[in-house]
Amino acid sequence: MKKIFFTAGPSQLYPTLPSHIQQAFVKNIGSISHRSTFYKSFHARTVENLRHLMRVPDTNQILFFSSANEIWERLVQNCVETGSFHFVNGAFSNRFAQITEELDYPCIKQEAMWGKGFGFASDIIPEWVEMINFTHNESSTGVMQPLAVVYEYKRNNPDKLVTLDVVSSAPFPELDFTFLDAVYFSVQKGMGLPAGLGVLIAGEAVLQKAVRKLERGKSIGSYHRFTDVWEKAKDSQTVETPNIMGIYLLGKVAEDMLRKGVQQIREDILQKQKIIERITKISDKFSFFVKEEPFCSPTVITIEAGEKAAEYIKIADSEGLVIGSGYGKLKSTQIRIANFPAHTLEDFALLEKLFRKLL
Amino acid sequence: MKKIFFTAGPSQLYPTLPSHIQQAFVKNIGSISHRSTFYKSFHARTVENLRHLMRVPDTNQILFFSSANEIWERLVQNCVETGSFHFVNGAFSNRFAQITEELDYPCIKQEAMWGKGFGFASDIIPEWVEMINFTHNESSTGVMQPLAVVYEYKRNNPDKLVTLDVVSSAPFPELDFTFLDAVYFSVQKGMGLPAGLGVLIAGEAVLQKAVRKLERGKSIGSYHRFTDVWEKAKDSQTVETPNIMGIYLLGKVAEDMLRKGVQQIREDILQKQKIIERITKISDKFSFFVKEEPFCSPTVITIEAGEKAAEYIKIADSEGLVIGSGYGKLKSTQIRIANFPAHTLEDFALLEKLFRKLL
Repeated sequence: MKKIFFTAGPSQLYPTLPSHIQQAFVKNIGSISHRSTFYKSFHARTVENLRHLMRVPDTNQILFFSSANEIWERLVQNCVETGSFHFVNGAFSNRFAQITEELDYPCIKQEAMWGKGFGFASDIIPEWVEMINFTHNESSTGVMQPLAVVYEYKRNNPDKLVTLDVVSSAPFPELDFTFLDAVYFSVQKGMGLPAGLGVLIAGEAVLQKAVRKLERGKSIGSYHRFTDVWEKAKDSQTVETPNIMGIYLLGKVAEDMLRKGVQQIREDILQKQKIIERITKISDKFSFFVKEEPFCSPTVITIEAGEKAAEYIKIADSEGLVIGSGYGKLKSTQIRIANFPAHTLEDFALLEKLFRKLL
Repeated sequence: MKKIFFTAGPSQLYPTLPSHIQQAFVKNIGSISHRSTFYKSFHARTVENLRHLMRVPDTNQILFFSSANEIWERLVQNCVETGSFHFVNGAFSNRFAQITEELDYPCIKQEAMWGKGFGFASDIIPEWVEMINFTHNESSTGVMQPLAVVYEYKRNNPDKLVTLDVVSSAPFPELDFTFLDAVYFSVQKGMGLPAGLGVLIAGEAVLQKAVRKLERGKSIGSYHRFTDVWEKAKDSQTVETPNIMGIYLLGKVAEDMLRKGVQQIREDILQKQKIIERITKISDKFSFFVKEEPFCSPTVITIEAGEKAAEYIKIADSEGLVIGSGYGKLKSTQIRIANFPAHTLEDFALLEKLFRKLL
């Protein structure tokens, strides 16, 4: 049965993906050498397309890893010596903090309740902290962190690195890279690709931190240390044989998104969010979990659905609409709906029809 | 133009791959959750098929990583404290040693000339070494290491871990896992898949080494530490969202290979090797680089072709046959031919025709 996946990742594939895979076979993308000029040419194109799509300045490098999990580990390994500061308001921001701890680096967590984001507070970041980490969109709770607050922390801590997890929001947010040293995502969410590739957009300060740590005789990891990865990236290369097919497909999907226009994609996402908002307004069966509007994520929408949440999810599935449950402790009473570029207005119209039936 | 890739990896895709990808789309493999029972079912099937294909005992766990490069790093991170011993006879065995050094662990290299393998020598492994590392098939030189020697080292060092890189030989070798604590490969070589997935077959001693290191308060990495990866694997799961499509396709290709029969695959590989051997015998233009028969790899065949090597490669390419150059310092005078399960006898007949033309 043909299904539409509204899950927060892996999620619905971008509609053009099957034809790009078919083309990839014709072009032998699965067999060619990652050292060939052909490989370099589409690696460079993928980087260029992402650069346009997310308005990344030329000073920043676009690097490929295997997942956002790996990027968490590499950021800590390469950029932390004395300590890392984590804004934690859900399962994924917490996991990043845990990774810092597992790697044996000092870690401070500033926690907010699930369903809330962060405002700016002066004097909470100790001097010895080197990296401040935000999650733009908490996939577990549907909280989107206002960017102005993130930028304010960078303004107040110009010598510290600020990282931003846009795993389940990219390419929706319009980012100002002046205030962001590292921005990263994996491709199985907003980009609509199969899982197996992570993208890190890093500023020069990230590289310099790694260089200095290495110069001081500390290990910054091995094959994926930023010094080596960066050097290869300048030549449209990777250190190891990468997920070549993924890098090719990402470039193609980014191109399709550019053709549609990122502004159009943003407007569509907001319009699809409104469809769900409408539902929550006509009945008290459903309500937004995130109560404060500035924290309400358009890309991962969490809905309080009461004890029948699991039943609703089952009914939806029987109609070919795959929606997610709440995350972790919110599993039994919430439903989560991803609102990514791959989801059309028509897809959301089907969701609306379903919800009206459930009311 | 339709080409046949005889490169040592990425290489020719397994012939059934396109139809499996098509099926994967029908089954929504690119969108489903990695926590679903559907995912678990094919993860388990992939593991089972690999288990049969490579005769892996039930005591050993089959684990997924993103590349063989990553597996090198994880082996060192999880299993080494006092030191690692590397048998080095080419670029890839050397790279593993380098990774140990980059991670700041003591590393001993036992080197052999490029084109040679290793015999057994008693008393070369110091007491403080914890892990002994062999490369079964040096992709850079076409040397296959006799397994009896590897097993002899394990017999003489029962308390040390012995690891074996079968990146460019699997599934050809018939392995005795009694003597092998860790065996690993990436899927873009003998398995005929697109790159982006590494497989580690690990015995209980590997897990126990990681457990003890962690108990002593040492870091063994973060999301991919063996303790966590192993725990998840028992439930047909991975820690992070993995390359789901790759894991699905690997299971399908392994199934096709089982259907053909691994013995048949081995016989075909030896027969294809004989075709190349025939060529080297009728002219002194071409000769095997690896002179000693026990070290001669059937899966990556390196041929001395003199100063015209690059020209031959170009001619072959113009006829749709993509063959590799020598590796590194051997680049200008050698050609390398991969002989994997995806390559048919007919493919090698085309190669023979080409070589006869070049003579």
